[in-house]
Parts: sequence; structure tokens; C-alpha cells
Amino acid sequence: MSEERNGPEAINGLEATKTALPGHLYLVGVGPGAPDLLTLRALKILESVDLIIAPRSSASEASLVLGIVRPHLRHQEVIEHIYPMARDREQTARSWRRMADLCVERLRTGQSVAHVTLGDPLIYSTCTYLMEEIGERIEPSQIHFVSGISAMQAAAALLDQTLLTQNDRLMLMPADDMDAVAAALDQCETLVLYKIAHRLDTVIELLRQRDLLQDARLVSHAEQPGERIIRALDEIEGGRLGYMSVLIVRIGHRDWK
Amino acid sequence: MSEERNGPEAINGLEATKTALPGHLYLVGVGPGAPDLLTLRALKILESVDLIIAPRSSASEASLVLGIVRPHLRHQEVIEHIYPMARDREQTARSWRRMADLCVERLRTGQSVAHVTLGDPLIYSTCTYLMEEIGERIEPSQIHFVSGISAMQAAAALLDQTLLTQNDRLMLMPADDMDAVAAALDQCETLVLYKIAHRLDTVIELLRQRDLLQDARLVSHAEQPGERIIRALDEIEGGRLGYMSVLIVRIGHRDWK
Repeated sequence: MSEERNGPEAINGLEATKTALPGHLYLVGVGPGAPDLLTLRALKILESVDLIIAPRSSASEASLVLGIVRPHLRHQEVIEHIYPMARDREQTARSWRRMADLCVERLRTGQSVAHVTLGDPLIYSTCTYLMEEIGERIEPSQIHFVSGISAMQAAAALLDQTLLTQNDRLMLMPADDMDAVAAALDQCETLVLYKIAHRLDTVIELLRQRDLLQDARLVSHAEQPGERIIRALDEIEGGRLGYMSVLIVRIGHRDWK
Repeated sequence: MSEERNGPEAINGLEATKTALPGHLYLVGVGPGAPDLLTLRALKILESVDLIIAPRSSASEASLVLGIVRPHLRHQEVIEHIYPMARDREQTARSWRRMADLCVERLRTGQSVAHVTLGDPLIYSTCTYLMEEIGERIEPSQIHFVSGISAMQAAAALLDQTLLTQNDRLMLMPADDMDAVAAALDQCETLVLYKIAHRLDTVIELLRQRDLLQDARLVSHAEQPGERIIRALDEIEGGRLGYMSVLIVRIGHRDWK
């Protein structure tokens, strides 16, 4: 199965992503936090869509995503979806199933729907849960992903940190399993860790053992309020830097052969 | 060394990246090819900068980057930089040294300069060569990276392909060394290969041996003229798909523990 798109439509993006179409679902990445890191394509969809679904992880936490979207709101209806933060598969599925039902119902009435998420919709995004529950209930041709700048890219830009050049390999992973993190250090030139939360002290200790601490940088809340850029990891205390941190370790470099 | 940015400026992006400032250098990612995948921040810089440097890899090949930028040109001067495509370190360095000299000269006269590249400026980008040659000749505070949507993200969006969820690990690397590619298949849940060029047949053979061919998808020239989306690798002939291809292999999934 091979599809080709040619001509000016291909250059200017898919016809279907120019403005939101009736009965179509858009999974839109809004970037890491700063409203000016939206793409023009994401902006066009958000401005023209009927319903925007903005997920957030707890009832008390203000929706970062909504803050990015708000300046572009006119007629669009907005539904905030508060989903469980706990890593409970069944509870998570139930919450997203309700949202999937709502989406499908609205799409069948001919509305256009955008589900917005921080970063990119295909990198550690809540989109995945929505799509799992929507399953085969919508035609694939009516589903569109709109890429967004990821936290990894935003952190690298703030640090002036090259991620890859020439023959380098990059590994992106969560900091949940220290054996896997240790193995990754031997297998790539750049290691990017997400979801550091309470494991920062353990990661720092591992990097110190490998003599890599001076090659590690961290950005917490990149392009969000409270952003912190940390170029010397041994000067910080762990713990407090929380969930929204990206750690970049530049281990080495693989030149052209 | 830790830096904090707070308040509304942080939410709306760095003050220095709102419009191009005199004597400042901007390394701007323009995304994979479609003009509407520019970010608002990149657009603002390109619209307000004095000089735009657009690299391309040979004198005969039209500059894709320039095609993205052109609709936004008014007073800005544009210099196309034709750099050598050969993997010759000394020849490459010489070409970029000339461009670095030009940049520094213009910045010292108080001009603002944007160097534009396809994708993200920190992921396999020509920026790296420019920055190596500019070295310490500009204050770090006068250098700004503006993230762009990478080819990997564009390809995943076109394929509706989740890259990472929950505890998954992703490896991004070139397809230059088949031993390294084989090792990566054992160490991550998603493998993304760039720079496939003439190695596609070899990669397909490796994936067939590992029984992973049905989990691999390819996009050639994502969001560019001549884009091809290939969901069944065994139906294509290799060779012809060239340099601008992204191969995504979804090997497995690591659930929450």
C-alpha cells in the first residue's frame, strides 16, 4: 500500500488540515507551552474547529494546554477532560472511553473536533488513550495528526544543545527503570530522559559513576511558567524538579566513516 | 548554574525571540517542508530579520527551505549557501567557515541574521557546522535556537503512528551501520531510521529476519512535493526512495509497571 501526494496541495499541507472539516477529528500538538510555538497548521485547525477537547491531569491543576489555546478562541466550544493521573490501566481506560464516546457522537452529528495536547500528539501524549478507545469507530481518513514541538526539542533549544549530528544515535525514554537507563548510556550518543520526577537523585548518582555528570543538562518546565535551565547538575537538589523535566546527556559523537 | 524565567514573558516566549534583535543570530527550524508547519515564533523571526541564510546541498537542487520561507519575504536579504554534500570533513568545514565569517561580519554591523534549516535546528541539521565554525566569536546570549517540526514527527503524523507511550523507549539513528541497527532493535520499542538512501534493501532484509517487516512503515519526502507513504515495505523496491526517507519500526510496547 503506497500513497502519493503531489502538486501544490502537498507543499501547502493536506487539504483536510487547512481548516477543520465536518465529521473530522484532529489530534493537535500545541507544543511545550509558549503560545508562539504553535504551528500555523495547528492554529488554523483550532480557529476553525467546532469543539476543542483539552485534557488535564487533575481537577486542581490549571490546564496549560487551555492557556495556549485561549487567545485563539472565538465560537469554539471547549470541554476540559480531567483524567486520572494514577497509573491504573482500567481507571484510565474508563475515563478515556467516556471522552471517546463524546467525540464519536459529536463527529456523527457533523461537528469537527480537535483534541489538544502539550508537545507532539505521538510522543508520550494523552492522544494514545483517546485513540485506543475510539478504535475503529471513525474512518482513518477522518483522523488527522498535527505535529507539535516536543519538550525534548524545546529543552535542547533553551540549552543550545545539539541532539544529533552525522552518525549519532539518540535514545528518548522515561527514567523509570535504572537498568534500562544504564544500558542506554552504552548504546547512543545522546540520551534524553523524560518523567524524571522523584528519580533525579538516582539518575545523578548513575551519571556520576559513569563520569557523565558534566555532560548532562536539565530543563524543567521548558517554555512554561516557572521554567528552570540547569547546566550543572551537581549544584541542584533533586526531588523538587518534578514531572515536567527533560534531562539531556550528550555522551559522545559518531563521526562519518 | 541555574536560570529561571518567570511571568508573562516566559509564557509568550523569550523576549529576544519575539522579533529579531540587532546583532543576534537565529538558528531557525522551518519544519519538514509544508509552509504551514512553521511555528509562529519562526515566522515572527523570519518576517523581522535583516538577513536570511538558506543552505542547500548542491547548485542544481532547488532550495526546499527557501520555498517555505519565500511567502514571508519582504525587505529581508537572502543568501543561498551551497555547501558540499560529500562526507568530507575538511571540505565541509571550509565551506561553513566562509559562511560563519559572513555571519559574524554582518552581526557586528548590527544586523540580525537567521540561518534556516529543514526540520529542527538541533536534529541532523546544517546548523551544527555553522555553529562549530562560529565557535566563541558571538556571545551565547546573542544566539537563539527556534525549534521546528522534525521529519520523524511529520512521518509519524502521516502514518497515524504512535512513537511513544507509557514506558516506551525510542531510538533515532541513521541507517549507516547495520550492526548498530540490529543492536537497536533489541533495546527500544520504536526505532526510527534516517538517511536510508541505498541501504533500504539491507534494512528490509534485516527486518524480515527479525519478523518485524509488518511493523515497519516508511515515508519518503514527508510534507514535501513527491511525498510517498508506504505502509507495506515488502511491496516496494528499495533504492529509489532516496535520502529524504524516514523508516519507523514499532517493535513493541512497555507498559507501566
